[in-house]
Formats: sequence, structure tokens, C-alpha cells
Amino acid sequence: MRFFSDNAAPVCPQVMAAIADANTLDTAYDGDAWSAKLDGAMSDLFGRDVACLWVATGTAANSLALAALCPPYGAIVCHRDAHIQNDECGAPEFFTHGAKLLLAEGDGAKLSAAAIAALLDATRDDVHQTQPHAISITNATEYGRVYSPADVAAIGKVAKARGLKLHMDGARFANAVAHLGCAPADLTWRAGVDALSFGFVKNGGMSAEALVFFDPEMAKATRYRRKRAGHLLSKGRYLAAQILAMLEGDLWLANARAANAAAAMLAEAAGDRLVHSVEANEIFLRVSPQEAASLRVEGFDFYDWGPGEARLVTAWNHAPEDVRPLADAIRAL
Amino acid sequence: MRFFSDNAAPVCPQVMAAIADANTLDTAYDGDAWSAKLDGAMSDLFGRDVACLWVATGTAANSLALAALCPPYGAIVCHRDAHIQNDECGAPEFFTHGAKLLLAEGDGAKLSAAAIAALLDATRDDVHQTQPHAISITNATEYGRVYSPADVAAIGKVAKARGLKLHMDGARFANAVAHLGCAPADLTWRAGVDALSFGFVKNGGMSAEALVFFDPEMAKATRYRRKRAGHLLSKGRYLAAQILAMLEGDLWLANARAANAAAAMLAEAAGDRLVHSVEANEIFLRVSPQEAASLRVEGFDFYDWGPGEARLVTAWNHAPEDVRPLADAIRAL
Amino acid sequence: MRFFSDNAAPVCPQVMAAIADANTLDTAYDGDAWSAKLDGAMSDLFGRDVACLWVATGTAANSLALAALCPPYGAIVCHRDAHIQNDECGAPEFFTHGAKLLLAEGDGAKLSAAAIAALLDATRDDVHQTQPHAISITNATEYGRVYSPADVAAIGKVAKARGLKLHMDGARFANAVAHLGCAPADLTWRAGVDALSFGFVKNGGMSAEALVFFDPEMAKATRYRRKRAGHLLSKGRYLAAQILAMLEGDLWLANARAANAAAAMLAEAAGDRLVHSVEANEIFLRVSPQEAASLRVEGFDFYDWGPGEARLVTAWNHAPEDVRPLADAIRAL
Amino acid sequence: MRFFSDNAAPVCPQVMAAIADANTLDTAYDGDAWSAKLDGAMSDLFGRDVACLWVATGTAANSLALAALCPPYGAIVCHRDAHIQNDECGAPEFFTHGAKLLLAEGDGAKLSAAAIAALLDATRDDVHQTQPHAISITNATEYGRVYSPADVAAIGKVAKARGLKLHMDGARFANAVAHLGCAPADLTWRAGVDALSFGFVKNGGMSAEALVFFDPEMAKATRYRRKRAGHLLSKGRYLAAQILAMLEGDLWLANARAANAAAAMLAEAAGDRLVHSVEANEIFLRVSPQEAASLRVEGFDFYDWGPGEARLVTAWNHAPEDVRPLADAIRAL
Repeated sequence: MRFFSDNAAPVCPQVMAAIADANTLDTAYDGDAWSAKLDGAMSDLFGRDVACLWVATGTAANSLALAALCPPYGAIVCHRDAHIQNDECGAPEFFTHGAKLLLAEGDGAKLSAAAIAALLDATRDDVHQTQPHAISITNATEYGRVYSPADVAAIGKVAKARGLKLHMDGARFANAVAHLGCAPADLTWRAGVDALSFGFVKNGGMSAEALVFFDPEMAKATRYRRKRAGHLLSKGRYLAAQILAMLEGDLWLANARAANAAAAMLAEAAGDRLVHSVEANEIFLRVSPQEAASLRVEGFDFYDWGPGEARLVTAWNHAPEDVRPLADAIRAL
Repeated sequence: MRFFSDNAAPVCPQVMAAIADANTLDTAYDGDAWSAKLDGAMSDLFGRDVACLWVATGTAANSLALAALCPPYGAIVCHRDAHIQNDECGAPEFFTHGAKLLLAEGDGAKLSAAAIAALLDATRDDVHQTQPHAISITNATEYGRVYSPADVAAIGKVAKARGLKLHMDGARFANAVAHLGCAPADLTWRAGVDALSFGFVKNGGMSAEALVFFDPEMAKATRYRRKRAGHLLSKGRYLAAQILAMLEGDLWLANARAANAAAAMLAEAAGDRLVHSVEANEIFLRVSPQEAASLRVEGFDFYDWGPGEARLVTAWNHAPEDVRPLADAIRAL
Repeated sequence: MRFFSDNAAPVCPQVMAAIADANTLDTAYDGDAWSAKLDGAMSDLFGRDVACLWVATGTAANSLALAALCPPYGAIVCHRDAHIQNDECGAPEFFTHGAKLLLAEGDGAKLSAAAIAALLDATRDDVHQTQPHAISITNATEYGRVYSPADVAAIGKVAKARGLKLHMDGARFANAVAHLGCAPADLTWRAGVDALSFGFVKNGGMSAEALVFFDPEMAKATRYRRKRAGHLLSKGRYLAAQILAMLEGDLWLANARAANAAAAMLAEAAGDRLVHSVEANEIFLRVSPQEAASLRVEGFDFYDWGPGEARLVTAWNHAPEDVRPLADAIRAL
Repeated sequence: MRFFSDNAAPVCPQVMAAIADANTLDTAYDGDAWSAKLDGAMSDLFGRDVACLWVATGTAANSLALAALCPPYGAIVCHRDAHIQNDECGAPEFFTHGAKLLLAEGDGAKLSAAAIAALLDATRDDVHQTQPHAISITNATEYGRVYSPADVAAIGKVAKARGLKLHMDGARFANAVAHLGCAPADLTWRAGVDALSFGFVKNGGMSAEALVFFDPEMAKATRYRRKRAGHLLSKGRYLAAQILAMLEGDLWLANARAANAAAAMLAEAAGDRLVHSVEANEIFLRVSPQEAASLRVEGFDFYDWGPGEARLVTAWNHAPEDVRPLADAIRAL
């Protein structure tokens, strides 16, 4: 059983069916019937008028968002362990034309409003320093921690007070919402978020992520940037259909709950071995090289995460019976 | 019946089946079994070792190719009517970091070696002018014309003599090869082409295009650029599977032949109305506004192409019986 | 006697004296007493509150202006023979992060409002085409022609009607104003110009050009861009002092009048040989290779400008007695 | 007396004289007699064939160097307190088109080979992370510390072993050489440096810095980048003349020795108050707000450098009698 990545999981059946349903003649790019429904479906979900653009990757969603929120000569505050800093090969710099990422600290890749404020205070307001224009947080974080609506609102308050925009990398937004049980609105625009990368691929989708602007006006330039970045797929209906299928009947939440439940089962088994508390679908645990080897011998795959640590990721398709053997094996170490 | 665009056509069944087959657990990004076969399959097709990267759009393929062939401070020669100049919202400029497109002329969006040489001769070799580093041609062209192996070789010779790289935008490469009946090698690397955007989406694919470098060394930096541009899809197996399905049993050629045949049927009906000779799957014809309106009344859709002209595009799924009514209607005008 | 370029001329004595006067201790960058006076001095000249930034080159002034007026995904309309298109090695593309130059036509490198409007009309308003955001005109043009206040106002009207910004490359703005005898305001902001590259180097300066924004708000981001482009000189007082010296007692106009007068003397001698009417300090004339050679034998240097043409440029320091021998030689051909 | 910055100091008389001497007619840009001598003069100084380009600012020199050494999708290792990271408004990101700065640590803004190697070891070699392509060190550092030839050689060895290029920001290179008494070659190319930003403005120049490539081949593309960045001044002779004057009779060393001597006098007075050992012309010392205020009352100006610290910078024109009063005042605190 592989616990490498939620990207390794297959596509869930409802999404496959939606793709098959979309396999008909329609207008190219985003002029089709499916794409036309996206704004409405997302507006319903978030309880306000939003603009929603499909893109094929989370990296594109994040980078397009940052390009909308920060000029080339500006800076974006993020966590030292943020995906946008470490795992996107400089995509934010590419899309923003060279904006700088300013790195803040916090346990579990989670930033506090205070840490952000301290970093901002340390920046001189003159032309010699790149001036912060935006903040980007990841929810759930790269270490599987979750920002609550109150956490986000505190950061949103700092952003607003300083005239900065706020982006949320929601590659695992579904897992965060599933964990919190809150309204999507409470975790985003009501807390001051301007743009959300709303991930579906890690959650059972194939190739569609949603970039949501809570002020539709902000999406205008992004439509040009998306085309210019080669991200306006010519048969966009197959992407829109995936997102609509995910929203239908809250499939996105059901899938995320399944992944979170699988992670919780592993977390319970791991006990003191946990490096971070498990709030979404990632588990980081302390294992010796010998222990890791023995788990692998038993057929479980995962990433080593530095010396003496391992990362396991659960997915929408990890049923309890799939996960229990690993939980037992961890407990038995 | 719609003749707007080959992007409007559905995905062909073999590609749908391949996507379904790929719907299993595998490694993320391009570490999967399907992606691993791409270089080999393309090398077989082209009769030499090549490197092949999947991307989701032709714009991404073109722009990544150009970024590999031309530095930011350089220039790329292309036709005034090239897709990269007019229809990609500045994507080449974005990916190359501001290289300049130098525009040459030629009937039917087709460049001659002589026209290119004349443009190159007019550029001063000093630091005040952007120096040409690459040439990009589209085959089949934006007006449905086809470069023969000899046409390309003549341009390749100019490129080589001046130390320039040569890119082929092959969004409709299949239609060109189907028209010519030549070996893919003769139309590309044997004629001096360094990089090919090999299109599948307009030819029955869903979301996969191939970027082929005939010198695999040239692909190295592009792997980083692809990630950096947000074009390394996290579940890449669904793209690789599409391309493999297209190559299997030369489906790409069969599909293109069908589209070309449909276009030929329309061309024959159009007779003197043709603006450009029809060599691929696009037909440009002279129709008065009244004639265009009457065709539409009969249920045929297409683009107006400036005053008094219309563009019709045929696709892999246009069977003769689908096209005959339009041919008859054109003949009857 | 050299008539190659006004850049080849020496620096005029008043500017040299101003540089010597500035040779004292003061605050670095643009925090000094001279830089502090620039906004005021330019506001006086133009009869309204403007923001003025010194830079060391016309290319920097033009490119910073264009970056302020056009986003990366936009386009700028200019003449096919514009300096920004042909002689700056892609600097506009570099500073704007890849905006596209859309090329219009017109005699003597001069654009008409109608030609611009026609070009704009030909651009589809969709995300596939780079949308025009700005217009850039050069006054005096690259062929020594001058836009009158009415010419500029007609273009400014087109710009305003379409929501575009208007830039004037005024490398030889002084020569244009000297020719017209108009108020600087009439040729710029009153006619709809948003930003002016006001050149001094070709007019007797050493290394200082002024970038003038008629809406001071527009200059804000440019202050960051200037630093980021390495154009905030650490001892800026030596640049500001040059500009102040040029404005003092309208030295800029006196110098330009001298250059224009020299050009007029040559133009009169050239008669039918003139390719463009001479309105500033550049003369383009028809000369056979033999004639050009004979002028050179007599000690006059200039550029060949394509087959059978020559370009001569006069400068602030060309006294009538310096120019008369060339005028006589041309007449004698 | 001001000790704010060496940028605040006036231009030394020999440079002013050289500028006056250059005030004659010559070819524009870098086609003049002075510019033509630069390569030779620098090659003599460094004992090998080098290519030297004048630019107007250290920021331009640094950024052009980094653009030559690192592709847009790469990364550059530098110190957390490096000028290129904190004081250039993102110029390296602008010129490199978005390369990422990877920040290492070390006392006094000085990097060790070990710290660099550790940072490099922590970077995964895959397409998700920006791969290091260059290292940049500042000599003398931002805190007035000096790398010895052995220090640089150790870093050069790491660079070479990993296939990275090495840049030295030598805004105060003269002060470092003056401190060390070594050959310029030993501190640069013999120790593995590929490109040097050789500063003159802080050392008595007006507006000329030298960008030196130890492999002249590497300068070729930079000539285009310089023009494209608006840094090819049209009257370049005035810049080249400054550099030649500085090299003449080793004026650069004499000026730096004077500044260093002034700093040493202050350092001796400061004793235990020193935050960093004083090896060049910058002094960081611990002073209470009251002490700082009392120094200012006595007429000495300087920057506060965080709470309880002050930065003083000496310059080429600080004669012992100018500095002694401040030394006495510090001693008397």
C-alpha cells in the first residue's frame, strides 16, 4: 500500500463519469457550458459573488493568484516551509516577474499573525527594500496543520492594516474544512482572504484546480495571465466538469473526510511518534531507519522526511480496511 | 453541425479508453509508467533519440520550446500571422522573458527561406538591436497550408548558416504529415528542426501535447521551466497515456487523414471561393454576408474571417456523411 | 567635422559647471538638495504639479515609463521605426516584463491618430490577443519630424477614448519645442500625454534624462522600479544638477535652437535631396555613394542610411561657421 | 561631519579632472577612445585577459553579473544580510528574470565554505526545487569584514566542485584589497571568482563601476543585457574616464587606504563597543540612544543600526584631522 502522496491516488469515479459526460462537442477554451457554470457554483458554495478560473495545477493556481496580488517589484510573506517557496521551482517568481518571498517561521509550517507582523516591522519602507504586498498561507499546511477561521482572521487583520492582500494555498483546503467543520466562507473571505487556490487533484480529481477570487474584479487581469501562461486549455470543459462534479453533493468534503479519517487512524496508532499533530491527511512520525525498513518490508511505502522521520499521506480512496494494517504495523513497532 | 474549431470536437474513443486505463495508483508528476515510455515511443516514431515532454496546451509547448531556443535578449523570426504572435496573449514573451518576435511575410501564413533571409539581413549586428536566435514556423500553417520537407530544409539551411535554432509549431503537424505522406523525420530533424510542438488536442486528444526536442540535451533545462510554469501536472500519467494512445497504431495519422478528407470535400465544393489552397483541415472561403447567413440558417456554424470571408475547420470525427450536406450547401450558394 | 550623432557632442559648459558645483558632500541616492528641487522645477516648466525622476539614459526613461503605463500582458502601439522598437535591444520588453509592441505606419516615423485607431480596431478584444494599454510616440521623431500640439491632441483623444495611456519619447523634445515655439504643456499633458521622457543628453547634457509623470501618483511605483533596475545612482546629485542647469534660463531651448538652426542651414543647402522635411536637428538626404565619399574626403562624417541615403545630425555646439562648409559642400555636389 | 555613507562623499579631484578631459567629441555609447582602453587596463591590473564593462551603479553591476551566471530558473546562494538580498529592491530577481536567492548565515555577513556547502546539501536535486547555479559573496562585506584569498578560494572550491559560478560584489573591493595588501588576482580569479563588481563610486568616483568577467567570453551576452537594461550610457566616455583615472597610479588603492585608516582610528577609539572587527571602512558600534544623541549634538552624523547600535562609514576624503574629533568623542562616551 502506498502512502507516498495523495497525487498518486487514482481519480474518483464521479470525476471520471463527469469527464465522460463532457465528451461532446462544445465551444473551445472556457466558452463551454461547464465553464459557464463555475462562477455560480462557487458563489453558491462561498455565499457571495466570486470569480472562479480552472487551471490544471496547484502551482498555476498559486502563482496566478500571487501575480494578481503582488507587483513584480513587491514581496510576499510566506512560511519558510511553504510549497510556493520550496516545491514549485520558482513558479511564484516566474509568474510575478520576480517578486521576492519573505520567509517567516512557525511550528508545523503554520504562521501566526504575530510572526508575520514582526517580519513586516523589520522591513524598511524605502525603495531599497522590496515592499511586502501580499501574504500567502497554506491551509492545511505542508505539515498537515490547520488554520482555524480565527487564525486566518488574525492574519487577515494584519494584512488589512498594512494594505496587503491575502492568499490561501488550499491544495488541501478540503481537508482543512473537513477537519474544522466550518463554512468555507468563514475560512476565507470572511477572514480576509482575497484569493484561494482550491485544490481538487489531491482529493480525487484528475487535472483541475480552482482559482477563486472573492472580488471578481481581481480576476479580470488573471484571465489574460492564464492564457499567457499557456494555462487556458483548449478543451476546458473537461476541467470544469471535474470541479462541478466535486462540488456536486459536497463530494469534495466526503473525499476529504475519508482521507482525514484514514490519517486519524494512523495518528492514533502513532501516538508519541507524531512530529506534528494530525489535523488533515498528512502524518509525520519519528521512525528509526530500521523501523522504516521493517514497515517497507511489510509492504507500506512512504517518504523518508529527513533523518529519523517519515511522511505518510492518506487519500480519498483509503478505506479503513486499507489503512488498519499500517496502523497495526506502526503500533507494533 | 459546427465547423468552428477542431478544439470543439470531442475526444476520440481510444484516448478516452487510455485515460480510463491509466486510472490507477502510480507515482506523481512524470514519475509514472506511462510518462516513462514517452521518450521511447517518440524516438521510434522519429527514428532517432529524442526527448519528449508532455504539456497540457500547444501554447505551453510552443513557449517552452522558444524559451529553450532563444535567450531573453534575443529575437525569434515568425510569420506576421503566426499563432505565437496573434493568439497566445504574449505567451512567447512571457516564457522567454521578453524576447522579441520579428515578423516576416508570406502567402497563407507560410514563410519562405528567402523572406526569412531578407529579414535577417536587415538586422544590424550590434547591441542596439535584438539579435535573432531562432525561427518558428507553423506546419500546417494558420491558413491550412503545408510546408514540404524541402520547404523546411531550405529554412533549416538558413537557420544553420546563421547559427539560429528552428522551431516548428505542429498544432496540426498530423494534418501536415497526413497531407504529405512523408516520414515525420523528413519534415523535422532531417530538415533542421530543433524542437517540435506536436499537437494532439486538435486531433482527438483531451489535454496532452508533446514537446519534442531532437537533441535530448536541449530538454534538460525545459524540465525545470515546465515545473516553474506550473505545467508539470501532478497526475501526469493521464497526459502520457493520451499521447501513447495516439501513437499506438498511428491513430494520430488516421485521425488527421479523416479531418483532411473532410476538408478536401469542402474544398472541392468551394472551388473558386477558396482564399488559400486546402492542404490540411482548414478552409478559408469567400462568402458574402448573405451567403454566410444562409449557411447558418441551414445549421452550419463557422467563424467569419474578416469581411467577406469565412473559416471552416474539420475534425477527426467529421465523417463524409456529416460533411456532405455542407459541401452541397456551399456548392449551391 | 562629425555629424554622426548628437550623442557624440561634448557636454555644454553650463552643465559641466553645475556638476562641479554639486561636488560636495550630500545625502546619497536622491535624498540630496538638487534632486529635491526637480519636481518643483519641472512643475514650473509645465505649469502643473508633476513628478520628475532623473535617470541616466533615454532607454531607461522610456522603458520605465512604459512599465508604468502597460502591464506585462498588454501591448503598446508605436511606429515601426520607433527607437523603442529598433534601437533599445528589447528594453521595453525587459522593463514591462514582456509587453508586446504593436507596430503602426506613417511617413517620417510619425503616427497619425487615424493610423493608430485602425491598428486598435484590428485587435480582437479577447484573452488570446495582447490588449493595447498604451501608445508611445517620439517627438521629434526618429526622422526629425515634429508632432504639433494638435497632432498629439488627436492621438491623445484616441488614447483617452480607448482607455489607453500615452507616452512621449522626448529624446529630442527640446528640438521639437524649439521648432514649434509652443508651451511645453501644450505639447504634452494638455494634449493627453501621461509620461514624457525628456532628453538632455543629446542636447548638451552628460548623463541625465528626466522622466516626467504628469500625474505624480503614477510615479510612485516607478521609484521602486528605478531602484530595481539599477538606475538609482548612488550619487544622484550629479544628475539632478545637470537637469537643473539645463532648465535654468531655458538653456535647453537655447541649445536646441542652435542645433535646429544648424540643421536648417544644411536642409536649405540640400534642397531636393531631402528625404524628410527637416523640423528638428536631423537631416536625411539622398546622396550617391560617390557623393558621400566626396563629402567624407572633405572631412565631413555621417552615417550611411541604407542605399543612397545619409543621415546627418547637428548638435548644440554646431555654430553657423562650423556648419557652413558642409552646407556649401552639399550644395556643390 | 557626516559618517553616513561613502556615497555621500564628494568625487575626488583626479576623477573630476578626468571627466573634464573627456569633454570632447567622440563616438557615442562605448565606441570611444576611453572605453576602448578599459579591457586592457583591467587586464593589466588582474594579470590576465579580462573583459570589463562600465555601468553606472553597483546594483547594475551585481545584477548583470548574476544574470550572466544564473538562469531564470536557478538559484544564487548569498548571505542573509547581503546587499543583493536586502538593499537592491529585487534587482537580482529583475535582471535574472526571477532566480531565487538562497540565504546562508555567517558572522559579519561573511559566509564560510562550510555554511555554503551545508545549504547546497539541503537542496534536493529535482525539478521541484530551484537548483543553485551561482554563489555571490561581498568583499568587503556589508559589515566591513574582509574575505582573504584563502577564504575566497575555499568557497571557489565548493563552487567548482558543484558546477556553480562565483560572483564577488566588490562595492568595497578596494577597501578589501587595501586591508589585505594582496594582489587583486589572488582575491578573485585565482580563487575561483568568475565575475567581479568592482566599485569606484564609494571610493571617490562619480558614476562609474566596473563589471569584470575573468573569462571574456562570459561578457558577450552581458553587452546585450546592459543595453537592454538601459545601462549603455550614450556618452560612455565619461564613465570609462572615471575608471581609468581610478586605476592610474593605483588611486583606487590610495583612496581606500585613506578610508580604511580613518576607520581604524575610530575602531581603536571604540574598543569594546565594536560589534564587528573593523577591516575596511565601516564601523558598527554599540551606543545607547543617549550616547548617540550626544555624538550628534557634537556634530557627528551616522545611521542608527537597530536598537543600541550605530553604523559609521569613512570615505576617501576623511583625513586624520577630520576623524580625530569623532574618535575622541567616542572614547569620551
